[in-house]
Amino acid sequence: MSFNTFGHLFRVTSFGESHGPALGCVVDGCPPRIPLTAAEIQNDLDKRRPGQSRYTTQRQEPDAVRILSGVFTDEATGQDMTTGTPIALLIENVDQRSKDYSDIKDKYRPGHAGYTYDVKYGFYDYRGGGRASARETAARVAAGAIARKIVPGVTVRGALVRMGPHAVDRSRWDWDEVSRNPFFCPDAKMAEIWADYLDGVRKAGSSIGAVVEIVADGVPPGLGAPVYGKLDAELAAGLMSINAVKGVEIGDGFAAADLSGADNADEMRMGNDGKPLFLSNHAGGILGGISTGQPVVARFAVKPTSSILQPRKTVDRYGRDAEIVTKGRHDPCVGIRGVPVGEAMVACVIADHYLRHRGQVGEGPSWPFPMTDR
Amino acid sequence: MSFNTFGHLFRVTSFGESHGPALGCVVDGCPPRIPLTAAEIQNDLDKRRPGQSRYTTQRQEPDAVRILSGVFTDEATGQDMTTGTPIALLIENVDQRSKDYSDIKDKYRPGHAGYTYDVKYGFYDYRGGGRASARETAARVAAGAIARKIVPGVTVRGALVRMGPHAVDRSRWDWDEVSRNPFFCPDAKMAEIWADYLDGVRKAGSSIGAVVEIVADGVPPGLGAPVYGKLDAELAAGLMSINAVKGVEIGDGFAAADLSGADNADEMRMGNDGKPLFLSNHAGGILGGISTGQPVVARFAVKPTSSILQPRKTVDRYGRDAEIVTKGRHDPCVGIRGVPVGEAMVACVIADHYLRHRGQVGEGPSWPFPMTDR
Amino acid sequence: MSFNTFGHLFRVTSFGESHGPALGCVVDGCPPRIPLTAAEIQNDLDKRRPGQSRYTTQRQEPDAVRILSGVFTDEATGQDMTTGTPIALLIENVDQRSKDYSDIKDKYRPGHAGYTYDVKYGFYDYRGGGRASARETAARVAAGAIARKIVPGVTVRGALVRMGPHAVDRSRWDWDEVSRNPFFCPDAKMAEIWADYLDGVRKAGSSIGAVVEIVADGVPPGLGAPVYGKLDAELAAGLMSINAVKGVEIGDGFAAADLSGADNADEMRMGNDGKPLFLSNHAGGILGGISTGQPVVARFAVKPTSSILQPRKTVDRYGRDAEIVTKGRHDPCVGIRGVPVGEAMVACVIADHYLRHRGQVGEGPSWPFPMTDR
Amino acid sequence: MSFNTFGHLFRVTSFGESHGPALGCVVDGCPPRIPLTAAEIQNDLDKRRPGQSRYTTQRQEPDAVRILSGVFTDEATGQDMTTGTPIALLIENVDQRSKDYSDIKDKYRPGHAGYTYDVKYGFYDYRGGGRASARETAARVAAGAIARKIVPGVTVRGALVRMGPHAVDRSRWDWDEVSRNPFFCPDAKMAEIWADYLDGVRKAGSSIGAVVEIVADGVPPGLGAPVYGKLDAELAAGLMSINAVKGVEIGDGFAAADLSGADNADEMRMGNDGKPLFLSNHAGGILGGISTGQPVVARFAVKPTSSILQPRKTVDRYGRDAEIVTKGRHDPCVGIRGVPVGEAMVACVIADHYLRHRGQVGEGPSWPFPMTDR
Repeated sequence: MSFNTFGHLFRVTSFGESHGPALGCVVDGCPPRIPLTAAEIQNDLDKRRPGQSRYTTQRQEPDAVRILSGVFTDEATGQDMTTGTPIALLIENVDQRSKDYSDIKDKYRPGHAGYTYDVKYGFYDYRGGGRASARETAARVAAGAIARKIVPGVTVRGALVRMGPHAVDRSRWDWDEVSRNPFFCPDAKMAEIWADYLDGVRKAGSSIGAVVEIVADGVPPGLGAPVYGKLDAELAAGLMSINAVKGVEIGDGFAAADLSGADNADEMRMGNDGKPLFLSNHAGGILGGISTGQPVVARFAVKPTSSILQPRKTVDRYGRDAEIVTKGRHDPCVGIRGVPVGEAMVACVIADHYLRHRGQVGEGPSWPFPMTDR
Repeated sequence: MSFNTFGHLFRVTSFGESHGPALGCVVDGCPPRIPLTAAEIQNDLDKRRPGQSRYTTQRQEPDAVRILSGVFTDEATGQDMTTGTPIALLIENVDQRSKDYSDIKDKYRPGHAGYTYDVKYGFYDYRGGGRASARETAARVAAGAIARKIVPGVTVRGALVRMGPHAVDRSRWDWDEVSRNPFFCPDAKMAEIWADYLDGVRKAGSSIGAVVEIVADGVPPGLGAPVYGKLDAELAAGLMSINAVKGVEIGDGFAAADLSGADNADEMRMGNDGKPLFLSNHAGGILGGISTGQPVVARFAVKPTSSILQPRKTVDRYGRDAEIVTKGRHDPCVGIRGVPVGEAMVACVIADHYLRHRGQVGEGPSWPFPMTDR
Repeated sequence: MSFNTFGHLFRVTSFGESHGPALGCVVDGCPPRIPLTAAEIQNDLDKRRPGQSRYTTQRQEPDAVRILSGVFTDEATGQDMTTGTPIALLIENVDQRSKDYSDIKDKYRPGHAGYTYDVKYGFYDYRGGGRASARETAARVAAGAIARKIVPGVTVRGALVRMGPHAVDRSRWDWDEVSRNPFFCPDAKMAEIWADYLDGVRKAGSSIGAVVEIVADGVPPGLGAPVYGKLDAELAAGLMSINAVKGVEIGDGFAAADLSGADNADEMRMGNDGKPLFLSNHAGGILGGISTGQPVVARFAVKPTSSILQPRKTVDRYGRDAEIVTKGRHDPCVGIRGVPVGEAMVACVIADHYLRHRGQVGEGPSWPFPMTDR
Repeated sequence: MSFNTFGHLFRVTSFGESHGPALGCVVDGCPPRIPLTAAEIQNDLDKRRPGQSRYTTQRQEPDAVRILSGVFTDEATGQDMTTGTPIALLIENVDQRSKDYSDIKDKYRPGHAGYTYDVKYGFYDYRGGGRASARETAARVAAGAIARKIVPGVTVRGALVRMGPHAVDRSRWDWDEVSRNPFFCPDAKMAEIWADYLDGVRKAGSSIGAVVEIVADGVPPGLGAPVYGKLDAELAAGLMSINAVKGVEIGDGFAAADLSGADNADEMRMGNDGKPLFLSNHAGGILGGISTGQPVVARFAVKPTSSILQPRKTVDRYGRDAEIVTKGRHDPCVGIRGVPVGEAMVACVIADHYLRHRGQVGEGPSWPFPMTDR
């Protein structure tokens, strides 16, 4: 993670402001000969797209993606495939209403990045949050759609598990529910509660925080680059870099602070297929920064958006006390659209570690049993 | 964060196994002409040093550091100063009892990195955890001692704020208490409770998790490299890369999921000195990945060590079911020694961002008021 | 230098194939508040643009650049300025005649990258050389136009100093001549000779190599990151990464192999302004990988293009012997258009080192006299 | 290449000054389970070791290397093997005669890095050149010894091909000669000429430049990371980063500027083994930045050392004109010891690209014939 590029072998560089002409990214290091079409990327983008329900911003952005490079049609098969060279993805901005911001362009929204961008750079594109806008996450989702195609057998899924005080009931968890409600909620009953709750928040001109959970199934054991490029360290960076995220945890996360060593240990037995089984997954699929072969489980907390209709005390760019009300069009619970973004970041980090592992260790079986056969 | 190096301009590369001849690090990119002696680094290392109370491992390691390069005596002043070239720090291992591990060398400790290292590399130095051992964190603390000298006016302090079920009472927080008890506990009363509690854990041959809080005061506003190298993203990576850490949060962290936008907003007023004041610090000193000038507050959860005397089910390297009891010498609460390590990581990340900011933006005043003067 | 990104603080990521929809780059890390317009970038691009004389490819590409992000209009001044966020630059391809290549798509051009791309990736966009095309260098020139604006007082200029057997006469060197002939030749007389010579080469369906020299005046002393990120090491990488370049030298370069230590020494005297003067510049402005304050002088050799009308023996993708004649539209001397590209690479490397130096050492005076004042 | 670390997956970080307590490096990213002993590394170091003939510095340094980490004894075989974790290598300095430098510590040697280090950092360890000393290259050679073990079938060899005006006769080239004379000269007859010539240089208190050639046989086709991390670009950086190097070329190098496209084309035919053959190697084994499978050939020019007995005009740290004579113990032709250093750098760059290629593309056959089988 550095500046506007992340990843080591699978590298994503993003660009673009909320109300500029376009945003996008360059995905470098993708293996060659992977089938890829704009439609596949669009599919993921559509999950993150604004304006799809009354629970997200009403800005209407088609978020139509164009592939500018790095993909070519294989003559033998007629299939579009990656060439191994940089894949540039472009999304034009369409529905900017920059004048919405003219009222507040000189006032800092409490809890918003406008203040710090201005302090850092002495200048910033205030329209819609500029570079600090969550629109940047469209680039992440697009990159993630490519990342998903790299590691055979891996599935990355996410769900909203808490909205304000209302957490899902894990006994009702059903992945199929996630696509059936506008909240990415795996608990049908809770989705109904959230619908009412969020209507209230929205009507009050307020906003609310949330927690997102991402689960990656099928991650091969052995991925991770200790000690500073640990899989969990880079997941933490990737997820914390998403707008409005204030906390990240792996497996039991903060709850592990309450556990004894005996309770926290994921005991092991040999399975019938000659491979070890874990009897629990407190670790969230990562030990010592390396994947165990269990599902990788990460969770992140999303703060409520700072763009609210309730007036707040602030100062302006000229050093005067002021009061601010943010009209614009905002998500009452930005955590919702954080779900596909979180999936994308996890997919990218895993793809990168897969390539890095293959680079250092090769493609040989990473399975250690029986050790004497080595 | 990548592999065994972290940082961009202030870069730390560490090496060494728990029971090898030595461990250490190379600190590259340090500004020149900063006074530096081994004694200063030793001072920080001594806080992390094992064997100082009955609450940490009884391994006796002096952790004496030698500076091998990058420091030279200025003739004019007689002072040892950094030269701007790589500073290599060496800590020899002294008290290895590798035979302690011979009983368990072929069995995987549930919850320990031995399994994943073996799966990844097909081979590993099992003695004392090898590279996965928390001894590696001595290198971080040594690097952190240098990092602390780079940003004028910054103080990085840490404290243990929870041990298992017992959290400190923030109304009793006293930084001076931290050095008066063996737990880095800022709450004198809680330290007493922990003493009894941890005696029980230790005697039961068990272990317990913890939460550490790090506060950096005096961080100048404007540090952070959006959007992937955000200050909080790199703090998250740095802290998550510490052994046994399972969760990281900034400011209100996971509690922000429960807040409304109005409650979460850190309102602002102009102060008497013509600078803006924040009326609260839910953000933990970071907005949009850039420091606000408020204290930077990070917290991380440390799981209980997996090395316990209570027998656990496991498998061995030959694919057989087994039972394991880890004798060795271990910390019943590794979170305690996580405090100086967390401080070091935060200090390194801030130093790196300070240099990066200076590189991109220069040393001019980052203060924006009044904007018309620009 | 790595993959499709180069630079550390001033970072350029490029993308795009010769006959794809577009090419471009993302410039990350640019300091904020630098005035920047597309017209300024266009000005540099126009120097490299094909089809401007009969001595370069007849492909007609306007190479019109669009700024997609990272620039915003300052309200106070009405000036477009960098914001410190990534600057994305887009150049659409217009005049692709891909069918020109259908004859040769299955045959490898001897001396062309088509073979190695195919071996590496098992697949490649053969149209016009795909990613290996010199069209990629338009992105470098665009980035270089930004880089030129970063270091105060630096001027980067280039010239063609040799075409095949014909070298310029340095006693006739006139920088003003460079823009007066289609060869970037600083020697008016030699330009005439080249005109005739290259007509002959072109009519013979052949091509010829060349040598380019780049001079950067006004480079402040102290830039360079020893020992692996030396200024000259990164100039060498940057210049060698340009298509068709086979050699790079700094200052006297290979001629230094013939010199004695006494002859090679750039002696010094104190100047009237209290600053040291060098009595010669064998070193090309760099000692120990760090700039001396003298002009930085680099030279690179460009091989003749492999795309010629003379038939050559080769093999095809199906493992059969074949003969190849490359029609397309090619430069008889690609070295000519290498001049603005070389300037751009040198400008980018210097800008990056300027920011890196400022990061590590700050903006203080780097001048050491008198040392006792420190 | 950046700062004091180079490489992406095979990464070398070096540290140490000429007259400090020790120098060394950390090699990160080495694949696991590669047999490795200190004796093997020592073998390479001994080639570079000073004081072995009257033609190199008389400083007596055993350059004894210790492996501090990253290697462990495999129990099954009793063999020391890499573990995949960082390999730290330490070489203690023994024969420092720092007082040799006290005469000249305040005067800048013309053509030496002392001036630029002082300008950059405002301070430097002047003893024996400090960090700028060629002693640093011992770390490179040590790292190179590890790199040589990574890519199956690759052999990297070097030779001195020119000393001042005297170039070897390629018709007499015999690799076996290289180890039979103190110059790494592949031409026995020229070695005799050099012996007399260099005696003269040495006795005159002067020094002389040289050219070194490195050949890597057996490099698999497909290595290289276009467009900025090209194999030749990184070789250029690696070789240019060696002390005193002023020029680098690949294959025909600067001579390619004189060639026509027809002459420069390496024509191809199908070989009896069904693989393509090249009929020449003007390209030096690299096209488009990617290896062709032919020998990789690189050459670099080494300037004469600036440390000579002949008096030169200079200035001192206090801004006064001065005259300097450098006594110390120096190599009359530093190019000689540049041979093992050049080999090491080439070996490291190839190893890194091998791992990077394996990461992106995998271990599958990179051979494209017949393409229809794909």
